Amino acid sequence: MNYRMVFNIIGRIVMAEAALLLLPTAVALYYGEKTSLSAFLIGAGIALFVGLLFVLISHTKNRSIYAGEGFISVAFAWILLSVIGAVPFYISGEIPNFIDAVFETVSGFTTTGASILTDVEAMSKSMLFWRSFTHWVGGMGVLVFVMAIVPSNSKGTMNIMRAEMPGPIIGKLVPKIKNTAKILYLIYIALTVLEIIFLLAGKMSLFESVVHSFGTAGTGGFGVKSNSIAGYTPYLQWVITIFMLIFGINFNLFYLILLRRFRTALCSGEFLCYIGIVAASIGIITANIYSMYGNFSEAFRASSFQVSSIVTTTGYATTDFNLWPGLSKGILLILMFIGGCAGSTAGGLKVSRVVMLFKLIGREIKKILHPRSVSRIRFEGGSLSETTIDSVTVYFAIYIVCFVFIFLLLSIESFGLETNLSATAACFNNVGPGFAGVGPAMNYSAYSDFSTVVLSFAMLLGRLEIFPLIIALSPSTWSRKYR
Amino acid sequence: MNYRMVFNIIGRIVMAEAALLLLPTAVALYYGEKTSLSAFLIGAGIALFVGLLFVLISHTKNRSIYAGEGFISVAFAWILLSVIGAVPFYISGEIPNFIDAVFETVSGFTTTGASILTDVEAMSKSMLFWRSFTHWVGGMGVLVFVMAIVPSNSKGTMNIMRAEMPGPIIGKLVPKIKNTAKILYLIYIALTVLEIIFLLAGKMSLFESVVHSFGTAGTGGFGVKSNSIAGYTPYLQWVITIFMLIFGINFNLFYLILLRRFRTALCSGEFLCYIGIVAASIGIITANIYSMYGNFSEAFRASSFQVSSIVTTTGYATTDFNLWPGLSKGILLILMFIGGCAGSTAGGLKVSRVVMLFKLIGREIKKILHPRSVSRIRFEGGSLSETTIDSVTVYFAIYIVCFVFIFLLLSIESFGLETNLSATAACFNNVGPGFAGVGPAMNYSAYSDFSTVVLSFAMLLGRLEIFPLIIALSPSTWSRKYR
Repeated sequence: MNYRMVFNIIGRIVMAEAALLLLPTAVALYYGEKTSLSAFLIGAGIALFVGLLFVLISHTKNRSIYAGEGFISVAFAWILLSVIGAVPFYISGEIPNFIDAVFETVSGFTTTGASILTDVEAMSKSMLFWRSFTHWVGGMGVLVFVMAIVPSNSKGTMNIMRAEMPGPIIGKLVPKIKNTAKILYLIYIALTVLEIIFLLAGKMSLFESVVHSFGTAGTGGFGVKSNSIAGYTPYLQWVITIFMLIFGINFNLFYLILLRRFRTALCSGEFLCYIGIVAASIGIITANIYSMYGNFSEAFRASSFQVSSIVTTTGYATTDFNLWPGLSKGILLILMFIGGCAGSTAGGLKVSRVVMLFKLIGREIKKILHPRSVSRIRFEGGSLSETTIDSVTVYFAIYIVCFVFIFLLLSIESFGLETNLSATAACFNNVGPGFAGVGPAMNYSAYSDFSTVVLSFAMLLGRLEIFPLIIALSPSTWSRKYR
Repeated sequence: MNYRMVFNIIGRIVMAEAALLLLPTAVALYYGEKTSLSAFLIGAGIALFVGLLFVLISHTKNRSIYAGEGFISVAFAWILLSVIGAVPFYISGEIPNFIDAVFETVSGFTTTGASILTDVEAMSKSMLFWRSFTHWVGGMGVLVFVMAIVPSNSKGTMNIMRAEMPGPIIGKLVPKIKNTAKILYLIYIALTVLEIIFLLAGKMSLFESVVHSFGTAGTGGFGVKSNSIAGYTPYLQWVITIFMLIFGINFNLFYLILLRRFRTALCSGEFLCYIGIVAASIGIITANIYSMYGNFSEAFRASSFQVSSIVTTTGYATTDFNLWPGLSKGILLILMFIGGCAGSTAGGLKVSRVVMLFKLIGREIKKILHPRSVSRIRFEGGSLSETTIDSVTVYFAIYIVCFVFIFLLLSIESFGLETNLSATAACFNNVGPGFAGVGPAMNYSAYSDFSTVVLSFAMLLGRLEIFPLIIALSPSTWSRKYR
């Protein structure tokens, strides 16, 4: 294990956070929020100090890193980013409990959007900005910093990327990883700006447009109002609905569209399934909630918004879907687990994994009926290797196991099965709001410190797709045998 | 597809049911229950008629069957057995709704023990006997009839056995399948008789001893009292606790013990895990519910009974565990999914599958850290083939998918998430009681006919381990292409 490089990478990422903190500092300066200003400066100072310290103690000539180092760096970098990112909330006194502040920051960076805040509207503008900015940064991962600082060692970068990118397969758009990342980030920024423009066109203030676009782009869900998006006009709700859906699509597709390869892009199996799942869910829920809203357009808008919000694991709400009938809530619960497409900023299992699981089941049934038949699973124009299939099924297994453990730890709280189960689902899948006690009209403040830590861990597990954290915390990683 | 043989097998199984129905007929005669008597005779008559008809129309010289025929025969045989077995309940008027009567019979044959009866104590003795007798018959499957009637075609029998035996691996104890089945059945009968003797020794009436032993042996859970086992002495509760645990163990182990191969039997990985899971659950729950019961021995007995009942998917209860704190309920919910050992009469995923999934996850983590390492998964003294591993992971995937679909169909009912989710878990895993609206103090009578059918299907899916039913209902099985 090349510990020095691990420290080096983490140090550089934390130093980058110091730079990121300058943006909310500027916002605090603009709005004249003095307490927040000093809180952000102290936060940035700590990030700079810790980052420098890590870099200085880790000087090494051996710059080679493997999967193990990549996973461990990413795991600890995210934890450290969250802890330091929580400092401004705590110092400013806006979140007086440090564990709560860490929860809020983890929720931000992991693009979950679960909040312990009981009164969002009481927060200062710069803190709200920072909260939503963590969504935007977390959305595409700390990859960009890594790109910028790790020496052009394609293999090492690949290993960090593997540890952090959502979804089962890394789409290499262009031969050089560094260029792939650049393209993805340009698309990300362009789409965010586009959403800001559309929101401004609907007469949303600049501040709120920016904050909501950050929340949509990162499929996060932090807003500035207690009732989330419910108070905005239908036009604004539709803009956000559509952009949530866009940010749930594999970014490779946008690149293909830029290259004018429309056919390849639109015939993607995952994309078509994603559209199918969204359309079917909207249809069934619209019919199911029609009587609650009295007219089709209201029901359709509420259904479309909530479905898009949950399937992309964003977590914005325009209505208290906790009051919806069982079937609609059941569908939303399942959408939480499916999540968006691989290679998007969404959480959950990812549509491609779900599709592969179904194809795998089909193959098994065929195998039972015709034992001598050999059939390959075709997906996205190629046939899946057994290694990919194995990694999908094993991921599914570990995913369920983690879910069960988190749920069990949360069961210690006396909130009832619906609250605890949906809190687990909403945090682990990086959605945000769940049902009952953690429904869209509620928040996570009722949970004890212990559960807050468990849920923070769940959000990180979900965002990093489990393995980095498990590997970082597994005794075998640290045993002498493998050093 | 050899349709004639499929009809032939189903016909013979249904004829065997006619013979089985003579036992409750005798009970009705003994207790002088005239309505029941004629109901059972009519039921037996229908079974005989349908069975004969099937056998007569299916005369064929081609007696070869493959996996497809085996799975389809088993699937339709179980459905037909349940429908005909429901006739006496319906004709006697003791269950006036035929769909409810089918639910109750499916629940019996699948050893689930979920009931729609609102007043068990009002039933006639012979109906209660038949109800529990279906548990006992269902416990080891209709295999015994198949053994007795299908010509000694080892391969064909193997295919039916594969379709029906619980657990991922068929333990071939002795070279000839027919002999294996005989040995398993002798053990099954001997253990049942032993339990009857122990219950009689505790001054339980002969009728109740027999009925409860049927329920325990089949890990079913039908009793004769509304409060299940709560009204019996601690001695009787402990006897049932221990026998539930015994019937959750792989029957191969008992055979090994008979052969005096104690070491092999007791070092079974699955057995040790099973004991570990049970002990840990009892320990945690005892501590968790201690304050509710006030003294250790009460809490320990309640915890032991409920844990044994749920992990073996029996479903007896001595206390309303729906009132237990969240952690205890969470553990019980997870135990429902784990279930007993493979090769036992219990339902659920089975301990061996869960153990294999954990080992698989461990291997995947190792693979990430050391990509070039090749590691085999060792289990029960051998290393698992990739085919076995694949079948376990795919089974897990299809299991979760089925669970989600059943839950979604049930969500149409307005009973809330806890009721619908635990009803799905309790029926699909063949447990019986769930939480909230289907808790041990409640029953399934509140569900609509639609949901009753869905839950009946769920019980069959769980008992037959999914594939037979899926294959029997899959269009590709019936398409011309494969005929």
